[in-house]
Amino acid sequence: MRLKRTHKCGELNIQNVDETVILNGWVERIRDLGGIKFGLLRDRYGKIQFVIDPENKDIYDIAKNIGNEYVIAIKGIIRKRPEDAINKNMKTGEIEILVEDLEILAESETPPIYVNKDEEISENLRLKYRYLDLRKEKMQKNLLLRHKALQITRQYFSENDFMEIETPYLTKSTPEGARDFLVPSRLKPGSFYALPQSPQLFKQLLMVSGFDRYFQIARCFRDEDFRADRQPEFSQIDFELSFVDMDDILTLTEGLLKKLFKELIDYDLKLPLRRFTYDEAMNKYGSDKPDTRYGLEIQDFTEIFENTGAAFIKKAIENGQKVKGIVLEGKATKFSRKRIDEYTEFAKSVGAGGLIWVKNENNNIKSSIKKIAEPELNKLIENEIIKNNNIAFILVGDNNEINKILGHIRVKLIKEEMEKKDGFDVLWIVDFPMFTWDEEENRLVAEHHPFTMPKLDEFEKFADSEPLKIRAQCYDLVINGYEMASGSIRIHRKDLQNKIFELIGLNEKEINEKFGFLIEAFKYGPPPHGGAAIGFDRLIAVMAGEESIKEVIAFPKTASGSDPMTEAPSSVSEKQLKELKIKLNL
Amino acid sequence: MRLKRTHKCGELNIQNVDETVILNGWVERIRDLGGIKFGLLRDRYGKIQFVIDPENKDIYDIAKNIGNEYVIAIKGIIRKRPEDAINKNMKTGEIEILVEDLEILAESETPPIYVNKDEEISENLRLKYRYLDLRKEKMQKNLLLRHKALQITRQYFSENDFMEIETPYLTKSTPEGARDFLVPSRLKPGSFYALPQSPQLFKQLLMVSGFDRYFQIARCFRDEDFRADRQPEFSQIDFELSFVDMDDILTLTEGLLKKLFKELIDYDLKLPLRRFTYDEAMNKYGSDKPDTRYGLEIQDFTEIFENTGAAFIKKAIENGQKVKGIVLEGKATKFSRKRIDEYTEFAKSVGAGGLIWVKNENNNIKSSIKKIAEPELNKLIENEIIKNNNIAFILVGDNNEINKILGHIRVKLIKEEMEKKDGFDVLWIVDFPMFTWDEEENRLVAEHHPFTMPKLDEFEKFADSEPLKIRAQCYDLVINGYEMASGSIRIHRKDLQNKIFELIGLNEKEINEKFGFLIEAFKYGPPPHGGAAIGFDRLIAVMAGEESIKEVIAFPKTASGSDPMTEAPSSVSEKQLKELKIKLNL
Repeated sequence: MRLKRTHKCGELNIQNVDETVILNGWVERIRDLGGIKFGLLRDRYGKIQFVIDPENKDIYDIAKNIGNEYVIAIKGIIRKRPEDAINKNMKTGEIEILVEDLEILAESETPPIYVNKDEEISENLRLKYRYLDLRKEKMQKNLLLRHKALQITRQYFSENDFMEIETPYLTKSTPEGARDFLVPSRLKPGSFYALPQSPQLFKQLLMVSGFDRYFQIARCFRDEDFRADRQPEFSQIDFELSFVDMDDILTLTEGLLKKLFKELIDYDLKLPLRRFTYDEAMNKYGSDKPDTRYGLEIQDFTEIFENTGAAFIKKAIENGQKVKGIVLEGKATKFSRKRIDEYTEFAKSVGAGGLIWVKNENNNIKSSIKKIAEPELNKLIENEIIKNNNIAFILVGDNNEINKILGHIRVKLIKEEMEKKDGFDVLWIVDFPMFTWDEEENRLVAEHHPFTMPKLDEFEKFADSEPLKIRAQCYDLVINGYEMASGSIRIHRKDLQNKIFELIGLNEKEINEKFGFLIEAFKYGPPPHGGAAIGFDRLIAVMAGEESIKEVIAFPKTASGSDPMTEAPSSVSEKQLKELKIKLNL
Repeated sequence: MRLKRTHKCGELNIQNVDETVILNGWVERIRDLGGIKFGLLRDRYGKIQFVIDPENKDIYDIAKNIGNEYVIAIKGIIRKRPEDAINKNMKTGEIEILVEDLEILAESETPPIYVNKDEEISENLRLKYRYLDLRKEKMQKNLLLRHKALQITRQYFSENDFMEIETPYLTKSTPEGARDFLVPSRLKPGSFYALPQSPQLFKQLLMVSGFDRYFQIARCFRDEDFRADRQPEFSQIDFELSFVDMDDILTLTEGLLKKLFKELIDYDLKLPLRRFTYDEAMNKYGSDKPDTRYGLEIQDFTEIFENTGAAFIKKAIENGQKVKGIVLEGKATKFSRKRIDEYTEFAKSVGAGGLIWVKNENNNIKSSIKKIAEPELNKLIENEIIKNNNIAFILVGDNNEINKILGHIRVKLIKEEMEKKDGFDVLWIVDFPMFTWDEEENRLVAEHHPFTMPKLDEFEKFADSEPLKIRAQCYDLVINGYEMASGSIRIHRKDLQNKIFELIGLNEKEINEKFGFLIEAFKYGPPPHGGAAIGFDRLIAVMAGEESIKEVIAFPKTASGSDPMTEAPSSVSEKQLKELKIKLNL
């Protein structure tokens, strides 16, 4: 490099006029206007116009060979642009650099994807040429946002007395949640490491070690069937504290969020965040991760239908079931018979037996149950529950079940009928059930994970009789309908832990195989502790206004877990397999 | 938790006398003195004495059951200790807390290893109960140092316009350096991801993307035959810059080191660091990672022996070989015949044909070559090269070869005969050879890695004739004899890269298989760039005064790559193997 930069492209402005500077960067475009070459030079910090006069013949001749995405070094004088050439939309739009010397640092073939304009291209192509895709302004911005978030997060935890401690990536296969990625051990043939699904066990051990407050931005690995926006490896802000209760953890998390939203995107988060119990959220939104910006709350019509002539509804109510629905305002005309059928099919696909619908067309009722329940439908109109041009979808059944189905219908209605809202809907869900019933395995399973502390009074009361009534000391953070964080107070009492294992049907052998070392550790003075993990990729995506986390990960994988650029995963040599003492079994 | 802490143990002092506080922590010890219970409560922040009076009968009775490492909460008044009970060696030694209320938060069985005193125990036991081992003051201190180093490092790079970008851990098997850890892919059976040995290729791609300055504290994975102090996974401070030369990178690295040494251990590093060329280091110390604090430089005696009567030496010199040696001062009497024989065996084990020794005993020569080279030996004494009670070890042979052997002898002498020095010996080694000759494979191999930029003038001159003469634009940082960092300016020119591949004997197919995507990326405007990686674990170990990196890693593996605590690696289920379509081949 003969010409090493003295400045960055984006940092120059009218103050630099008459200075001689050297810039290094990429040619975003170059063209000939009336015999003079005008180009745009780009670096991470911005863009600036450069001008090459034919009078400077040597340079001009070199410039003839330059195309887009060439890397060049230019030396020249900063000058003010003519009044009519000023570009107010550009940071350096008042100035340009008159090139006196030029060096081609690297040539570029015609790039297979555009860097300087948006185009619809396949994800595969974008990822194959990710290094070019990353040159785009949007991607540079997203990764800069991510970089800043990383720094702010660590600073926040450090200032709050947390210690960053790195936990191993080569660890033991555990049965928690998803499928493990395995790593064959060469030195112990037939054995495998597992990549961690989370540092959960290690962070609890760090509490046992007395580190008091731990954090880490940890890579996690889950070998799941990749859905469109799920990555085999992802990052989480992981933290754990001793000698605290749930409120301490929520407050601490809120502080981080406030700081991130303010410093990254200048958004004021109002604290404390709203808290919904799991039951509230399910009854109102049919979801434990509701986006409450869109209203559309679930309404309980049970009372209105109590004495209905519709026998199947009446009977259901007598059996303790509910009549609940969602009312969409001002859009009844948008729901043709065909579209209603489609919603019915959708409801069935998520578990409904059928779907009742009611339209108010100028106070005339149209409904699938008009013939059998006209008085009650009239009441819905009279009480202004279903106003003119409203449409309601109603379900009859077990409260929990219909909540969930209405939750799905609600999300579909929001997606199809509501205008996209700006801003952020940030809230906590608390008081989750401790257990759910796994129909397939015919046993209780831990809703969160088996180290979650139950609400102690409920545990004492219901553990042996109605364990499904027990709620856990755990919490989810929800932003714009995404589960963004999850955490709990952990069990530090051996007796309690054993009882939970017993309830979810783990025998001693299984317990020892799977969590033996944690149980062992808890014999030696484990402090009361709890923590949480925040989905870092999703958080950045939401703040960047991106739908997909791939837009905020430098080198993501496709939905099938592959990387079109490196072609990972790939075949390996026989020698490698032999050394690992494994063979393929296709 | 009924009693939640209001203070930390270590933060209390004489200012807090008469305050009522609540503390949570571990009982470091508890004993009965004259009917009163005295204990020491410990948390991450320190320790404080607590006193339980028998007059407070309820509390006293509970305290009877408390043993070491119980987790308790105490509430009480801070009071000044009696004059004769003040402990000046303890931060809180002037005060104690008189317990009014007490809650046992968790019991502890007798810990299998001591937390509150040092003992010689096996590494296996330490790692099996790592969560207890980590409670020790030293380990808490080491991990706090590491935590601070992480924060300072990231802050330094951030302030210098670097972007932290996380690169994938599930990537493609590459042929660089060591053996890869492999991860079988379930979605693409028969294919494997590899865990990265370093983010080398990705960071170069990030430069192609125009990120200008990248850093990351990255986990790296190498499946090597573990030596005593090598870990299968380790951390490196990884960074890369565009549009820079070697000096920029060294200066930047030095700035980081200065900051770390100052802020972590209050040590002033003098900048700029000394730089040795590879040749200098080899000629002076016989090593490219010398610890220069111990002197013991290699001396060239060739001239003195030029006309020796010792035929084999004379002939060697005529053939261009050298006579070189190391002189250990004032210790000749410590080298018995038997010990000299041991050194001779050692020299042979590292490649010597034999070892010449010379002792000066009150200006009388004793030497293995006294009979054939007495005049030259006398000259060594007359010239005060070998003074009274000095012993010299001398080799005859090819300069490079004897340098290396003398380097090994030098290290052995330092270890066995020199007093351990304090402080830090920090220096750069530059101008490494670009290639070395691999005897086994009978071809050139890249000394650093094949993306290292050669010195361009030398490359043009010698590439086709004497490529071993070409030196590379790369550099190692050495601290106290450890290679602590390594880096280079990278090749960004396609023609050059292809030529290097050709010289190390990679054909196009191999190149494409192994580095295809990098070569492809370099078609589209790669900027001039370079970088380095610093061994983070070793750096922390050196600063903490630890010999082993295991002392600064929370959960390290044993030399055989296993974790006695979790028992990783372990066997996995048939179902898991089936899903991955692999089977064992033991």
